[in-house]
Amino acid sequence: MRRADTQRQSDRRLEILDAAQRCFVRSGFHGASMQEICAEAEMSPGNLYRYFPSKEALIAGICERNRAEAADSFLEVDRAPGFFEGLAALARHHLVERAEEEAGLCAEIMAESRRNPELARLHTELELDIKTRLVAMLRRAAARGEISPKADLEGAATMLMVLGDGMSWRRASDPTFRAEAVLPHMLHMVHCLLMHPPAENTEKEGSGR
Amino acid sequence: MRRADTQRQSDRRLEILDAAQRCFVRSGFHGASMQEICAEAEMSPGNLYRYFPSKEALIAGICERNRAEAADSFLEVDRAPGFFEGLAALARHHLVERAEEEAGLCAEIMAESRRNPELARLHTELELDIKTRLVAMLRRAAARGEISPKADLEGAATMLMVLGDGMSWRRASDPTFRAEAVLPHMLHMVHCLLMHPPAENTEKEGSGR
Repeated sequence: MRRADTQRQSDRRLEILDAAQRCFVRSGFHGASMQEICAEAEMSPGNLYRYFPSKEALIAGICERNRAEAADSFLEVDRAPGFFEGLAALARHHLVERAEEEAGLCAEIMAESRRNPELARLHTELELDIKTRLVAMLRRAAARGEISPKADLEGAATMLMVLGDGMSWRRASDPTFRAEAVLPHMLHMVHCLLMHPPAENTEKEGSGR
Repeated sequence: MRRADTQRQSDRRLEILDAAQRCFVRSGFHGASMQEICAEAEMSPGNLYRYFPSKEALIAGICERNRAEAADSFLEVDRAPGFFEGLAALARHHLVERAEEEAGLCAEIMAESRRNPELARLHTELELDIKTRLVAMLRRAAARGEISPKADLEGAATMLMVLGDGMSWRRASDPTFRAEAVLPHMLHMVHCLLMHPPAENTEKEGSGR
Protein backbone atom coordinates (compact mmCIF):
# COMPACT_ATOMS: atom_id res chain seq x y z
CA MET A 1 0.00 0.00 0.00
CA ARG A 2 2.76 2.41 0.99
CA ARG A 3 4.75 1.55 -2.13
CA ALA A 4 1.69 2.04 -4.33
CA ASP A 5 1.20 5.49 -2.77
CA THR A 6 4.82 6.43 -3.40
CA GLN A 7 4.54 5.26 -7.01
CA ARG A 8 1.36 7.26 -7.48
CA GLN A 9 3.02 10.37 -6.03
CA SER A 10 6.01 9.90 -8.31
CA ASP A 11 3.78 9.50 -11.39
CA ARG A 12 1.86 12.62 -10.40
CA ARG A 13 5.14 14.56 -10.09
CA LEU A 14 6.12 13.53 -13.60
CA GLU A 15 2.71 14.55 -14.95
CA ILE A 16 3.05 17.95 -13.31
CA LEU A 17 6.54 18.40 -14.77
CA ASP A 18 5.20 17.53 -18.24
CA ALA A 19 2.41 20.08 -17.84
CA ALA A 20 4.80 22.74 -16.53
CA GLN A 21 7.19 22.09 -19.40
CA ARG A 22 4.41 22.61 -21.94
CA CYS A 23 3.50 25.91 -20.23
CA PHE A 24 7.09 27.19 -20.06
CA VAL A 25 7.62 26.33 -23.72
CA ARG A 26 4.39 28.05 -24.72
CA SER A 27 4.56 31.15 -22.53
CA GLY A 28 8.18 31.48 -21.40
CA PHE A 29 9.45 31.32 -17.83
CA HIS A 30 8.13 34.82 -17.04
CA GLY A 31 4.91 34.48 -18.99
CA ALA A 32 3.81 31.13 -17.53
CA SER A 33 1.86 31.57 -14.29
CA MET A 34 1.34 28.96 -11.57
CA GLN A 35 -2.37 29.31 -12.44
CA GLU A 36 -1.71 28.35 -16.07
CA ILE A 37 0.37 25.38 -14.91
CA CYS A 38 -2.37 24.23 -12.50
CA ALA A 39 -4.90 24.39 -15.34
CA GLU A 40 -2.60 22.44 -17.67
CA ALA A 41 -2.00 19.80 -14.98
CA GLU A 42 -5.72 19.75 -14.08
CA MET A 43 -4.96 20.31 -10.39
CA SER A 44 -5.98 22.82 -7.76
CA PRO A 45 -3.25 25.27 -6.69
CA GLY A 46 -3.35 23.85 -3.14
CA ASN A 47 -2.68 20.37 -4.46
CA LEU A 48 0.05 21.39 -6.95
CA TYR A 49 1.86 23.50 -4.33
CA ARG A 50 2.24 20.39 -2.16
CA TYR A 51 4.42 18.94 -4.92
CA PHE A 52 6.15 22.08 -6.20
CA PRO A 53 5.92 25.33 -4.21
CA SER A 54 7.28 27.66 -6.95
CA LYS A 55 8.17 28.01 -10.60
CA GLU A 56 11.82 27.60 -9.58
CA ALA A 57 10.94 24.28 -7.93
CA LEU A 58 9.28 23.18 -11.17
CA ILE A 59 12.30 24.16 -13.25
CA ALA A 60 14.50 22.36 -10.73
CA GLY A 61 12.36 19.24 -11.21
CA ILE A 62 12.63 19.51 -15.00
CA CYS A 63 16.42 19.98 -14.79
CA GLU A 64 16.74 17.05 -12.41
CA ARG A 65 14.84 14.83 -14.82
CA ASN A 66 17.05 15.97 -17.70
CA ARG A 67 20.11 15.25 -15.59
CA ALA A 68 18.95 11.70 -14.84
CA GLU A 69 18.27 11.09 -18.53
CA ALA A 70 21.68 12.47 -19.49
CA ALA A 71 23.40 10.27 -16.90
CA ASP A 72 21.70 7.16 -18.32
CA SER A 73 22.58 8.08 -21.88
CA PHE A 74 26.29 8.59 -21.03
CA LEU A 75 26.41 5.11 -19.52
CA GLU A 76 24.86 3.70 -22.69
CA VAL A 77 27.88 4.87 -24.66
CA ASP A 78 29.88 2.22 -22.76
CA ARG A 79 27.51 -0.45 -24.00
CA ALA A 80 27.85 0.47 -27.70
CA PRO A 81 30.05 -1.77 -29.92
CA GLY A 82 32.58 1.07 -30.15
CA PHE A 83 33.02 4.42 -28.45
CA PHE A 84 32.46 6.57 -31.55
CA GLU A 85 29.34 4.59 -32.48
CA GLY A 86 28.04 5.16 -28.97
CA LEU A 87 28.91 8.84 -29.15
CA ALA A 88 27.13 9.19 -32.50
CA ALA A 89 23.99 7.58 -31.03
CA LEU A 90 24.21 9.87 -27.99
CA ALA A 91 24.57 12.96 -30.18
CA ARG A 92 21.73 11.86 -32.41
CA HIS A 93 19.48 11.27 -29.42
CA HIS A 94 20.19 14.59 -27.70
CA LEU A 95 20.72 16.88 -30.66
CA VAL A 96 18.47 15.53 -33.40
CA GLU A 97 15.74 13.32 -31.97
CA ARG A 98 14.96 15.21 -28.79
CA ALA A 99 11.75 17.19 -29.12
CA GLU A 100 12.37 20.68 -30.47
CA GLU A 101 10.34 22.11 -27.62
CA GLU A 102 12.79 20.70 -25.10
CA ALA A 103 15.71 22.41 -26.86
CA GLY A 104 13.70 25.62 -26.73
CA LEU A 105 13.04 25.19 -23.04
CA CYS A 106 16.75 24.76 -22.33
CA ALA A 107 17.45 28.01 -24.17
CA GLU A 108 14.79 29.66 -22.06
CA ILE A 109 16.19 28.33 -18.77
CA MET A 110 19.73 29.30 -19.70
CA ALA A 111 18.71 32.84 -20.69
CA GLU A 112 16.65 33.25 -17.54
CA SER A 113 19.40 31.91 -15.28
CA ARG A 114 21.47 34.96 -16.18
CA ARG A 115 19.18 37.07 -14.03
CA ASN A 116 17.73 34.65 -11.48
CA PRO A 117 20.24 33.55 -8.81
CA GLU A 118 18.25 30.45 -7.83
CA LEU A 119 18.09 29.28 -11.45
CA ALA A 120 21.75 30.20 -11.90
CA ARG A 121 22.72 27.97 -8.96
CA LEU A 122 20.64 25.10 -10.36
CA HIS A 123 22.04 25.58 -13.82
CA THR A 124 25.66 25.65 -12.60
CA GLU A 125 25.13 22.54 -10.49
CA LEU A 126 23.56 20.69 -13.41
CA GLU A 127 26.34 21.73 -15.78
CA LEU A 128 29.02 20.62 -13.35
CA ASP A 129 27.37 17.22 -12.97
CA ILE A 130 27.10 16.78 -16.74
CA LYS A 131 30.73 17.81 -17.22
CA THR A 132 31.93 15.36 -14.53
CA ARG A 133 29.99 12.53 -16.19
CA LEU A 134 31.28 13.45 -19.65
CA VAL A 135 34.89 13.43 -18.41
CA ALA A 136 34.28 10.04 -16.75
CA MET A 137 32.81 8.69 -20.00
CA LEU A 138 35.87 9.89 -21.96
CA ARG A 139 38.20 8.48 -19.31
CA ARG A 140 36.60 5.04 -19.62
CA ALA A 141 36.99 5.20 -23.42
CA ALA A 142 40.64 6.22 -23.02
CA ALA A 143 41.17 3.31 -20.59
CA ARG A 144 39.75 0.96 -23.23
CA GLY A 145 42.19 2.44 -25.74
CA GLU A 146 39.40 3.83 -27.89
CA ILE A 147 40.61 7.42 -27.83
CA SER A 148 44.10 8.87 -27.95
CA PRO A 149 45.99 8.79 -24.64
CA LYS A 150 47.13 12.31 -25.50
CA ALA A 151 43.62 13.76 -25.67
CA ASP A 152 42.87 16.49 -23.13
CA LEU A 153 39.73 14.97 -21.61
CA GLU A 154 38.65 18.02 -19.61
CA GLY A 155 39.05 20.27 -22.63
CA ALA A 156 37.28 17.78 -24.89
CA ALA A 157 34.36 17.50 -22.44
CA THR A 158 34.03 21.30 -22.42
CA MET A 159 34.13 21.29 -26.22
CA LEU A 160 31.36 18.64 -26.31
CA MET A 161 29.25 20.91 -24.11
CA VAL A 162 29.97 23.91 -26.33
CA LEU A 163 28.89 21.86 -29.36
CA GLY A 164 25.77 20.63 -27.56
CA ASP A 165 24.81 24.18 -26.57
CA GLY A 166 25.42 25.46 -30.07
CA MET A 167 23.31 22.73 -31.66
CA SER A 168 20.43 23.16 -29.17
CA TRP A 169 20.58 26.87 -29.55
CA ARG A 170 20.48 26.82 -33.31
CA ARG A 171 17.65 24.29 -33.29
CA ALA A 172 15.69 26.53 -30.97
CA SER A 173 16.31 29.77 -32.82
CA ASP A 174 16.82 29.01 -36.52
CA PRO A 175 13.89 27.44 -38.36
CA THR A 176 16.09 26.62 -41.37
CA PHE A 177 18.63 24.66 -39.28
CA ARG A 178 18.76 20.91 -39.92
CA ALA A 179 20.65 19.26 -37.05
CA GLU A 180 20.62 15.97 -38.95
CA ALA A 181 22.62 17.48 -41.81
CA VAL A 182 25.44 18.93 -39.69
CA LEU A 183 25.74 15.97 -37.35
CA PRO A 184 28.33 14.16 -39.53
CA HIS A 185 30.49 17.30 -39.56
CA MET A 186 30.24 17.58 -35.82
CA LEU A 187 31.14 13.93 -35.25
CA HIS A 188 34.05 14.21 -37.65
CA MET A 189 35.42 17.18 -35.71
CA VAL A 190 35.01 15.41 -32.38
CA HIS A 191 36.71 12.29 -33.76
CA CYS A 192 39.61 14.48 -34.83
CA LEU A 193 39.82 16.15 -31.41
CA LEU A 194 39.87 12.82 -29.56
CA MET A 195 42.00 10.77 -31.97
CA HIS A 196 44.43 13.40 -33.25
CA PRO A 197 44.55 15.98 -30.46
CA PRO A 198 46.51 19.18 -31.05
CA ALA A 199 50.16 18.89 -30.01
CA GLU A 200 50.78 20.68 -26.71
CA ASN A 201 52.00 24.23 -26.93
CA THR A 202 51.66 24.50 -30.68
CA GLU A 203 49.05 27.14 -29.98
CA LYS A 204 50.22 30.28 -28.25
CA GLU A 205 47.29 30.06 -25.83
CA GLY A 206 48.52 26.75 -24.40
CA SER A 207 46.92 23.36 -24.70
CA GLY A 208 43.54 24.45 -23.32
CA ARG A 209 41.58 22.76 -20.60
CA MET B 1 26.84 72.24 -42.44
CA ARG B 2 24.49 69.52 -43.70
CA ARG B 3 27.27 66.94 -43.45
CA ALA B 4 28.09 68.02 -39.89
CA ASP B 5 24.42 67.57 -38.98
CA THR B 6 24.34 64.08 -40.46
CA GLN B 7 27.51 63.18 -38.59
CA ARG B 8 26.06 64.51 -35.33
CA GLN B 9 22.85 62.51 -35.87
CA SER B 10 24.85 59.38 -36.58
CA ASP B 11 26.97 59.85 -33.43
CA ARG B 12 23.79 60.38 -31.42
CA ARG B 13 22.34 57.13 -32.80
CA LEU B 14 25.44 55.24 -31.71
CA GLU B 15 25.29 56.78 -28.24
CA ILE B 16 21.65 55.77 -27.91
CA LEU B 17 22.46 52.21 -29.02
CA ASP B 18 25.25 52.03 -26.41
CA ALA B 19 22.84 53.24 -23.71
CA ALA B 20 20.12 50.81 -24.82
CA GLN B 21 22.62 47.93 -24.87
CA ARG B 22 23.62 48.67 -21.27
CA CYS B 23 19.95 48.70 -20.25
CA PHE B 24 19.10 45.45 -22.05
CA VAL B 25 22.12 43.74 -20.52
CA ARG B 26 21.20 45.00 -17.04
CA SER B 27 17.45 44.48 -17.10
CA GLY B 28 16.72 42.09 -19.95
CA PHE B 29 14.66 42.81 -23.04
CA HIS B 30 11.38 42.64 -21.10
CA GLY B 31 12.68 44.36 -18.01
CA ALA B 32 14.23 47.37 -19.75
CA SER B 33 11.71 50.16 -20.31
CA MET B 34 11.94 52.97 -22.86
CA GLN B 35 11.97 55.26 -19.81
CA GLU B 36 15.08 53.53 -18.43
CA ILE B 37 16.76 53.78 -21.83
CA CYS B 38 15.92 57.50 -22.11
CA ALA B 39 17.43 58.10 -18.66
CA GLU B 40 20.56 56.12 -19.56
CA ALA B 41 20.93 58.06 -22.83
CA GLU B 42 20.13 61.34 -21.05
CA MET B 43 17.44 62.21 -23.57
CA SER B 44 13.77 63.07 -23.42
CA PRO B 45 11.38 60.38 -24.68
CA GLY B 46 10.22 62.71 -27.46
CA ASN B 47 13.77 63.15 -28.68
CA LEU B 48 14.75 59.46 -28.40
CA TYR B 49 11.59 58.33 -30.21
CA ARG B 50 12.62 60.41 -33.23
CA TYR B 51 15.64 58.12 -33.56
CA PHE B 52 14.15 54.80 -32.43
CA PRO B 53 10.38 54.45 -32.03
CA SER B 54 10.41 51.12 -30.12
CA LYS B 55 12.53 48.58 -28.26
CA GLU B 56 12.43 46.44 -31.40
CA ALA B 57 13.88 49.35 -33.38
CA LEU B 58 16.67 49.63 -30.82
CA ILE B 59 17.44 45.92 -30.99
CA ALA B 60 17.37 46.19 -34.79
CA GLY B 61 19.93 48.99 -34.55
CA ILE B 62 22.15 46.92 -32.27
CA CYS B 63 21.90 43.89 -34.59
CA GLU B 64 22.66 46.04 -37.60
CA ARG B 65 25.78 47.38 -35.92
CA ASN B 66 26.88 43.85 -35.01
CA ARG B 67 26.30 42.78 -38.58
CA ALA B 68 28.46 45.59 -39.95
CA GLU B 69 31.24 44.70 -37.51
CA ALA B 70 31.02 41.03 -38.45
CA ALA B 71 31.18 41.87 -42.16
CA ASP B 72 34.36 43.90 -41.61
CA SER B 73 35.98 41.18 -39.55
CA PHE B 74 35.29 38.50 -42.19
CA LEU B 75 37.01 40.64 -44.79
CA GLU B 76 40.00 41.01 -42.50
CA VAL B 77 40.56 37.26 -42.65
CA ASP B 78 41.52 37.77 -46.31
CA ARG B 79 44.20 40.22 -45.26
CA ALA B 80 45.88 37.85 -42.77
CA PRO B 81 49.14 36.13 -43.80
CA GLY B 82 47.27 32.81 -43.94
CA PHE B 83 43.65 31.75 -43.76
CA PHE B 84 43.93 29.83 -40.48
CA GLU B 85 45.82 32.67 -38.82
CA GLY B 86 43.08 35.03 -39.94
CA LEU B 87 40.42 32.64 -38.69
CA ALA B 88 42.16 32.33 -35.31
CA ALA B 89 42.25 36.13 -34.96
CA LEU B 90 38.58 36.34 -35.96
CA ALA B 91 37.62 33.68 -33.40
CA ARG B 92 39.71 35.33 -30.71
CA HIS B 93 38.11 38.69 -31.43
CA HIS B 94 34.51 37.46 -31.41
CA LEU B 95 34.66 34.68 -28.86
CA VAL B 96 37.30 35.76 -26.34
CA GLU B 97 37.91 39.49 -26.51
CA ARG B 98 34.38 40.71 -27.13
CA ALA B 99 32.84 42.14 -23.97
CA GLU B 100 31.07 39.49 -21.95
CA GLU B 101 28.02 41.71 -21.76
CA GLU B 102 27.67 41.62 -25.52
CA ALA B 103 27.67 37.82 -25.51
CA GLY B 104 24.97 37.99 -22.84
CA LEU B 105 22.92 40.39 -24.91
CA CYS B 106 23.05 38.05 -27.91
CA ALA B 107 21.76 35.23 -25.74
CA GLU B 108 18.97 37.51 -24.60
CA ILE B 109 18.00 38.53 -28.13
CA MET B 110 18.08 34.95 -29.36
CA ALA B 111 15.91 33.72 -26.46
CA GLU B 112 13.46 36.56 -26.92
CA SER B 113 13.23 36.09 -30.68
CA ARG B 114 11.59 32.73 -30.05
CA ARG B 115 8.44 34.53 -28.96
CA ASN B 116 8.60 37.89 -30.73
CA PRO B 117 7.91 37.67 -34.49
CA GLU B 118 9.54 41.02 -35.25
CA LEU B 119 12.74 40.02 -33.45
CA ALA B 120 12.55 36.57 -35.07
CA ARG B 121 12.45 38.17 -38.53
CA LEU B 122 15.41 40.41 -37.66
CA HIS B 123 17.35 37.53 -36.19
CA THR B 124 16.75 35.27 -39.21
CA GLU B 125 17.77 38.03 -41.60
CA LEU B 126 20.95 38.72 -39.64
CA GLU B 127 21.84 35.03 -39.46
CA LEU B 128 21.33 34.57 -43.18
CA ASP B 129 23.58 37.52 -43.92
CA ILE B 130 26.31 36.20 -41.61
CA LYS B 131 26.06 32.73 -43.16
CA THR B 132 26.32 34.13 -46.70
CA ARG B 133 29.41 36.13 -45.74
CA LEU B 134 31.00 33.13 -44.00
CA VAL B 135 30.47 30.93 -47.05
CA ALA B 136 31.97 33.67 -49.25
CA MET B 137 34.98 33.90 -46.91
CA LEU B 138 35.50 30.12 -47.10
CA ARG B 139 35.07 30.17 -50.86
CA ARG B 140 37.80 32.80 -51.22
CA ALA B 141 40.11 30.66 -49.04
CA ALA B 142 39.32 27.60 -51.16
CA ALA B 143 40.05 29.59 -54.32
CA ARG B 144 43.45 30.53 -52.86
CA GLY B 145 44.05 26.82 -52.17
CA GLU B 146 44.17 27.37 -48.42
CA ILE B 147 41.44 24.88 -47.58
CA SER B 148 40.65 21.49 -49.06
CA PRO B 149 38.73 21.62 -52.34
CA LYS B 150 36.65 18.75 -50.93
CA ALA B 151 35.40 20.74 -47.93
CA ASP B 152 31.64 21.27 -47.78
CA LEU B 153 31.63 25.06 -47.44
CA GLU B 154 27.94 25.44 -46.60
CA GLY B 155 28.15 22.75 -43.94
CA ALA B 156 31.39 24.19 -42.54
CA ALA B 157 29.86 27.67 -42.35
CA THR B 158 26.90 26.25 -40.42
CA MET B 159 29.32 24.44 -38.11
CA LEU B 160 31.23 27.70 -37.51
CA MET B 161 27.96 29.32 -36.50
CA VAL B 162 27.10 26.41 -34.19
CA LEU B 163 30.52 26.77 -32.56
CA GLY B 164 30.13 30.54 -32.26
CA ASP B 165 26.71 30.15 -30.64
CA GLY B 166 27.98 27.51 -28.25
CA MET B 167 30.95 29.63 -27.19
CA SER B 168 28.85 32.79 -26.73
CA TRP B 169 26.25 30.87 -24.86
CA ARG B 170 28.67 29.25 -22.50
CA ARG B 171 30.42 32.56 -21.87
CA ALA B 172 27.08 34.14 -21.04
CA SER B 173 25.80 31.37 -18.80
CA ASP B 174 28.78 29.62 -17.18
CA PRO B 175 30.98 31.73 -14.89
CA THR B 176 33.67 29.02 -14.79
CA PHE B 177 34.02 28.90 -18.59
CA ARG B 178 37.32 30.18 -20.01
CA ALA B 179 36.87 30.75 -23.75
CA GLU B 180 40.61 31.39 -24.07
CA ALA B 181 41.39 27.86 -22.86
CA VAL B 182 39.12 26.01 -25.30
CA LEU B 183 39.92 28.17 -28.32
CA PRO B 184 42.88 25.97 -29.44
CA HIS B 185 40.62 22.89 -29.34
CA MET B 186 38.02 24.67 -31.37
CA LEU B 187 40.52 25.88 -33.98
CA HIS B 188 42.02 22.41 -34.21
CA MET B 189 38.60 20.92 -34.93
CA VAL B 190 37.82 23.55 -37.56
CA HIS B 191 41.21 22.99 -39.21
CA CYS B 192 40.39 19.31 -39.38
CA LEU B 193 36.95 19.97 -40.88
CA LEU B 194 38.34 22.25 -43.58
CA MET B 195 41.60 20.44 -44.37
CA HIS B 196 40.53 16.81 -43.91
CA PRO B 197 36.79 16.85 -44.53
CA PRO B 198 34.83 13.65 -43.95
CA ALA B 199 34.65 11.45 -47.05
CA GLU B 200 31.23 11.74 -48.69
CA ASN B 201 28.65 9.15 -47.74
CA THR B 202 30.73 7.54 -45.03
CA GLU B 203 27.99 8.71 -42.66
CA LYS B 204 24.53 7.30 -43.20
CA GLU B 205 23.04 10.80 -43.02
CA GLY B 206 24.90 12.00 -46.14
CA SER B 207 27.53 14.64 -46.42
CA GLY B 208 25.61 17.31 -44.53
CA ARG B 209 24.93 20.82 -45.66
